[in-house]
Amino acid sequence: MNQDYIKPDNWSIIEEGFNTERVKSSESLFSIGNGAMGQRANFEEHYSGATFQGSYIAGVYYPDKTKVGWWKNGYPEYFAKVLNAPNWIGINIEINGENLDLATCKSVSNFRRELNMKEGIYYRSFNAILQNGTEINVNVCRFLSLDLDEVGVINYEITPLNSDATIIFKPYLDAGVHNEDANWEEKFWEPISVAHDSNQAFVTARTFKTHFEATTFMQNSILLNDVLQDVKPVVTEQTDDKIMLAYNISVEKEQKVAIQKFGGYTVSTNHVNTFAAAKNIIEIALVVGYHQLFEDQKTEWGKIWKMSDITIEGDVKAQQGIRFNIFQLNQTYSGKDSRLNIGPKGFTGEKYGGSTYWDTEAYCIPFYMATKDQQVARNLLAYRYNQLQKAIENAEKLGFKNGAALYPMVTMNGEECHNEWEITFEEIHRNGAIAFAIFNYYRYTGDYSYIPEKGLEVLIGIARFWHQRATFSTQKNQYVILGVTGPNEYENNVNNNFYTNYIAKWCIDYAIEQIQVVENKYNSDYVRILNKVKLSQSEISEMKKVADNMYFPYSEEHDVYLQQDGFLDKELITVANLDKSQRPINQKWSWDRILRSPYIKQADTLQGFYFFEDHFTKEQLEKHFNFYEPFTVHESSLSPCVHSIQAAILNKMEMAYTFYLRTSRLDLDDYNKEVEEGLHITSMAGTWMSIVEGFGGMRVKNNALHFEPRIPKEWDGYSFKINFRNQILKVAVQQNETNFSLEGETAIPVFVNGKEILVEPNSLVTV
Amino acid sequence: MNQDYIKPDNWSIIEEGFNTERVKSSESLFSIGNGAMGQRANFEEHYSGATFQGSYIAGVYYPDKTKVGWWKNGYPEYFAKVLNAPNWIGINIEINGENLDLATCKSVSNFRRELNMKEGIYYRSFNAILQNGTEINVNVCRFLSLDLDEVGVINYEITPLNSDATIIFKPYLDAGVHNEDANWEEKFWEPISVAHDSNQAFVTARTFKTHFEATTFMQNSILLNDVLQDVKPVVTEQTDDKIMLAYNISVEKEQKVAIQKFGGYTVSTNHVNTFAAAKNIIEIALVVGYHQLFEDQKTEWGKIWKMSDITIEGDVKAQQGIRFNIFQLNQTYSGKDSRLNIGPKGFTGEKYGGSTYWDTEAYCIPFYMATKDQQVARNLLAYRYNQLQKAIENAEKLGFKNGAALYPMVTMNGEECHNEWEITFEEIHRNGAIAFAIFNYYRYTGDYSYIPEKGLEVLIGIARFWHQRATFSTQKNQYVILGVTGPNEYENNVNNNFYTNYIAKWCIDYAIEQIQVVENKYNSDYVRILNKVKLSQSEISEMKKVADNMYFPYSEEHDVYLQQDGFLDKELITVANLDKSQRPINQKWSWDRILRSPYIKQADTLQGFYFFEDHFTKEQLEKHFNFYEPFTVHESSLSPCVHSIQAAILNKMEMAYTFYLRTSRLDLDDYNKEVEEGLHITSMAGTWMSIVEGFGGMRVKNNALHFEPRIPKEWDGYSFKINFRNQILKVAVQQNETNFSLEGETAIPVFVNGKEILVEPNSLVTV
Repeated sequence: MNQDYIKPDNWSIIEEGFNTERVKSSESLFSIGNGAMGQRANFEEHYSGATFQGSYIAGVYYPDKTKVGWWKNGYPEYFAKVLNAPNWIGINIEINGENLDLATCKSVSNFRRELNMKEGIYYRSFNAILQNGTEINVNVCRFLSLDLDEVGVINYEITPLNSDATIIFKPYLDAGVHNEDANWEEKFWEPISVAHDSNQAFVTARTFKTHFEATTFMQNSILLNDVLQDVKPVVTEQTDDKIMLAYNISVEKEQKVAIQKFGGYTVSTNHVNTFAAAKNIIEIALVVGYHQLFEDQKTEWGKIWKMSDITIEGDVKAQQGIRFNIFQLNQTYSGKDSRLNIGPKGFTGEKYGGSTYWDTEAYCIPFYMATKDQQVARNLLAYRYNQLQKAIENAEKLGFKNGAALYPMVTMNGEECHNEWEITFEEIHRNGAIAFAIFNYYRYTGDYSYIPEKGLEVLIGIARFWHQRATFSTQKNQYVILGVTGPNEYENNVNNNFYTNYIAKWCIDYAIEQIQVVENKYNSDYVRILNKVKLSQSEISEMKKVADNMYFPYSEEHDVYLQQDGFLDKELITVANLDKSQRPINQKWSWDRILRSPYIKQADTLQGFYFFEDHFTKEQLEKHFNFYEPFTVHESSLSPCVHSIQAAILNKMEMAYTFYLRTSRLDLDDYNKEVEEGLHITSMAGTWMSIVEGFGGMRVKNNALHFEPRIPKEWDGYSFKINFRNQILKVAVQQNETNFSLEGETAIPVFVNGKEILVEPNSLVTV
Repeated sequence: MNQDYIKPDNWSIIEEGFNTERVKSSESLFSIGNGAMGQRANFEEHYSGATFQGSYIAGVYYPDKTKVGWWKNGYPEYFAKVLNAPNWIGINIEINGENLDLATCKSVSNFRRELNMKEGIYYRSFNAILQNGTEINVNVCRFLSLDLDEVGVINYEITPLNSDATIIFKPYLDAGVHNEDANWEEKFWEPISVAHDSNQAFVTARTFKTHFEATTFMQNSILLNDVLQDVKPVVTEQTDDKIMLAYNISVEKEQKVAIQKFGGYTVSTNHVNTFAAAKNIIEIALVVGYHQLFEDQKTEWGKIWKMSDITIEGDVKAQQGIRFNIFQLNQTYSGKDSRLNIGPKGFTGEKYGGSTYWDTEAYCIPFYMATKDQQVARNLLAYRYNQLQKAIENAEKLGFKNGAALYPMVTMNGEECHNEWEITFEEIHRNGAIAFAIFNYYRYTGDYSYIPEKGLEVLIGIARFWHQRATFSTQKNQYVILGVTGPNEYENNVNNNFYTNYIAKWCIDYAIEQIQVVENKYNSDYVRILNKVKLSQSEISEMKKVADNMYFPYSEEHDVYLQQDGFLDKELITVANLDKSQRPINQKWSWDRILRSPYIKQADTLQGFYFFEDHFTKEQLEKHFNFYEPFTVHESSLSPCVHSIQAAILNKMEMAYTFYLRTSRLDLDDYNKEVEEGLHITSMAGTWMSIVEGFGGMRVKNNALHFEPRIPKEWDGYSFKINFRNQILKVAVQQNETNFSLEGETAIPVFVNGKEILVEPNSLVTV
């Protein structure tokens, strides 16, 4: 663990005291987002210390030219990067002729940040003594409106404490921004125009290559003791990509002067004329007004929490952790826009690039399915449907044909942009999760319509890929899948990864099953789709042959499926017997040593048992868990959640609790010493699963909810809510009982430890 | 095949006619070198067309910062690059006020290049009509002296054909050179000083980081109709890294004016004061004089050919091919300096970097052993001995200990500089070839002294590596070697590569055997070495256990050793059945597809059969050859030679001949469409082996030479000479007989097809 400066609190993330070494970490932890844009917790005023400036617009990316040491055939030409957008938050401050800069003040005291997760508002306050002796108190409040999602709001208040002061607010917009994660130090934005009009200013710029156009705008108001002032700004700086205004105001000691800045982006993905759209959205924001925007923000976050909150009693750190995870997931993706997805760092950093990984289907969809309207999960599925043609082209590049689809490892627009052959070309199991998510969506929501409408085409493309990717081994007289990387990225280019083979077989079986269902029940869709994809009965039979004769590596001796061929040739020393000085192995060992070791980065065979739990007995799960868990180093953020869930099923509650803590406070406690680069957004959905599916034991079987509630001995109780088929069920678990209640209209049956109970609307059932 | 403009000729490489598209290819093919430096066939005069300028100094390199897409633990910080050295050949020419530039002349006719391999001299001639109408004839001759290996010589003659002319020769030195293969476009040379003195000039520069200092020098003389003139030069250009002199001379129509330029480098690896050394070497060159240097060059090359020539009668292209190969090997490495080695592109290009690969031990040592004094091969062995400590450090970086040594994949100074994990960390078989070369040297030369003196320490370091690198598989109850790349680089991270496991076992066995020999026969060396390396009897027993219980993948069904675990799971479609449009697969297929295919880039299992031929029966060889050859695509320049040799042994002479042609004219006919990047130097030694070991069937067993002569039906005859234990044996094979003759003092027994004959000095034996 690397930091402990975040104060435990049920609803807020709080930092007290100013420490220059924490600035970059806090910039990540206090990030805000509203699904359409995001902002690291950079200071508004100039800061000359170490900082990582980041403003992001959802869906806007730059195709950064690929950088490799040794080019290999098939590498993509570019890596689509989440790019740093023009700065709209900047407000330089001049006080009695001196620029405010926390890095150079004589002193900074009472420095405090609070990210109020209940309200979705970020507060910062401090007292500072400038080099010229002026002492000031500053209070800043910032949020990105959920209602008007192109608008961010800043209220920046200054009170001179020891003298009158001449204060110049210099709000600016700047498209001349730098990217932390650029391969070649290129500029990503090309300036188009700069305009201003009284209190408003606009910088329009266009991304190179992709030609996304964004107008970054601001509208400023000056208030003295909360009363609006008529201060005319002057333009103090204007270049082709930047504009800065200056508001000069003299205030008396202890008078509070404030600038209210509305800013944000209007983007060509949503508007034909981004400049006109910016003008328009400013008008709307001015009509609504600062106070109403502030109140609306609380209301909107209230609605989110009403549906998705998890409470934990008796353990503030655990409570803070899970709320932080839920909060960040909601900041990153609102589900409104099916062109968007859930980037691994959300709006908190640039590393990894792309916005879509298999994380979405494997980890995030269950969270959004249970805490949002089911349209949100459907939009996530449709995102892949909309990129099916690109997935087919991607497969063609690798030698597949006839409509076989390989979804990319990392993408922004459907094209592959990851470039490491052992992942890009070989971590093909991702295709399986995309099919699984379709199954999972139907299982949870009961909404079959997605499959004839869109899903079946995706399932067919994926099944075709697996059919062509398998090889018949005359040696084994079965189908094998050679040269893959499984979920455990500490193995590369292995043969017959159990997880991959298993999900490949399942994908083919499921696709064929759905073809039959659609043929029988949605025949016009069936005809339309089969005409489109030209799937013959003989191709279906060939596919089925592959699925029916898939090989799975298995050890008689241990009675477990083997992670891949040859796993037992390894030197099987458990993690517990590995010297602590050797960990984490990804920092201490060379890559070849990691590869030939038995150590598992993240759940792999067990990931298969997680997805297909009902295909195996609990005894089988236990055997596999006991076999693989001791070799698992969990050096991926996506690992502990699956282990936590399975430990809970197996009644290994101490283990389950340990894994839970590791996943839920990964960023708050900076386990991996990298939080300054941004947060681990997608694994946060895994934390949610650890509680709901792990401790709560929630499953959906035959259209009904099942629970096996368990509770860590450290907690007094916990509760969660889930949206199940448009009714909200609340489950509250305590040490000795579980309470169910329903916000909805229709009683639903719920199975608790296998026993059916009926939960009626608005009445409590205790078990 | 990509070009056919090189005229067939027994002794020369000849190009006729000027074609701008061939310039870069010819710059490679007409390269010259003398072991100490090298020069691509760039024009002396300015050329504004497409060109790849390259001048190289043996042993001088630059540590170019590593460029990778995704950093992996253990990657080296830099890649040691052969760097472009300052230009000493430049002579700009001004004729009647116009600069001579073949790209912009009104016409160029009678353009001809000839690289006379017998003499080691490069000639170029042409007629040109300038834009100003002046017509000239130009004859240039250039060579790098073998005698004075710091000196290059140019004689540049101009004859105006249609008018009198004012000619200005502008010889220059330039350290401001560019590198084709730089990772980050950095400058590699830092200028130190520029000096001139009458006809001489000097540019001293130092490589950044490595701090090699080189004084590049020139000395010019002007001759009119072969008579030395007293023309005073003026300095026309001088910067901190460049100096250009100008000689202005008026000549009458049909008078021949020439500049004779001596130039080259004196380097800090050989001199304390490079500037003084440059002054000194110029004095020596002037005393010897142009004509004597020219004659000495022919004499020295005559000596080389006397020892190493191979004649082929009845097939000019085959003759030209083999001489080109022998010539280039001699230009690249003379064997004088044990600090040097044989770079894959010699002095003809920059690609790949480094100077030392396993190519040296696996392919080059047999050539140098048989065509040079045995000290040359000993120097190549000593090169690795001198880098043993670095090999131990390299192994430590990857987690090995206790003196285990892993030699680098690519190196200049003993440090690893290759950075692709599947090669750098996993292509560990290279370690085996280094031990094998020690065995091979002793087998061929009978000089055991190298082993107690130096070799044994290397053998122990290597044996220790294999001991630690093997893993005991409880499953197989044998030792396995996991996660390697064999010689066939179209497989990565495989388990139990037969070649690797076999050579690993052999290395341990051989090291233990030599420990015993040294203990018994060189006891003081034994004591010294064991004290130094701290090798205990118990470590030896542990090692032996690994060697004795090494696992080799084997197929009962096919009765062959398998290239690696799981090879038979592949779809075994032969190359003959692969659509031609799919070849070469390294250009047509994505990397993953290559990896899971059965296609073999270069001899792998068969490489083991080549090294350890006498461990197997001819029936076994045939079985393995017939099994693997059909899957081999020979997309490495190092592959056809081994197959050619084995095809010859197995009396598949058509195949042997086809493989021979492919290897011998690889660059002349530009099979791989990349000759403009430079030549494939190390595979040229494989061509030599194809004739001597393949067709000639030469082997050394029990201190005696054995032959099984065969001849392709396309040839009338061929002959080669070998230096065997300080006597030169000539073997001349014709369709019906083979003749042996000996230049030496002592009769030697020779076994021909198993039958012993005695070859007496200076008399012919016909079989």
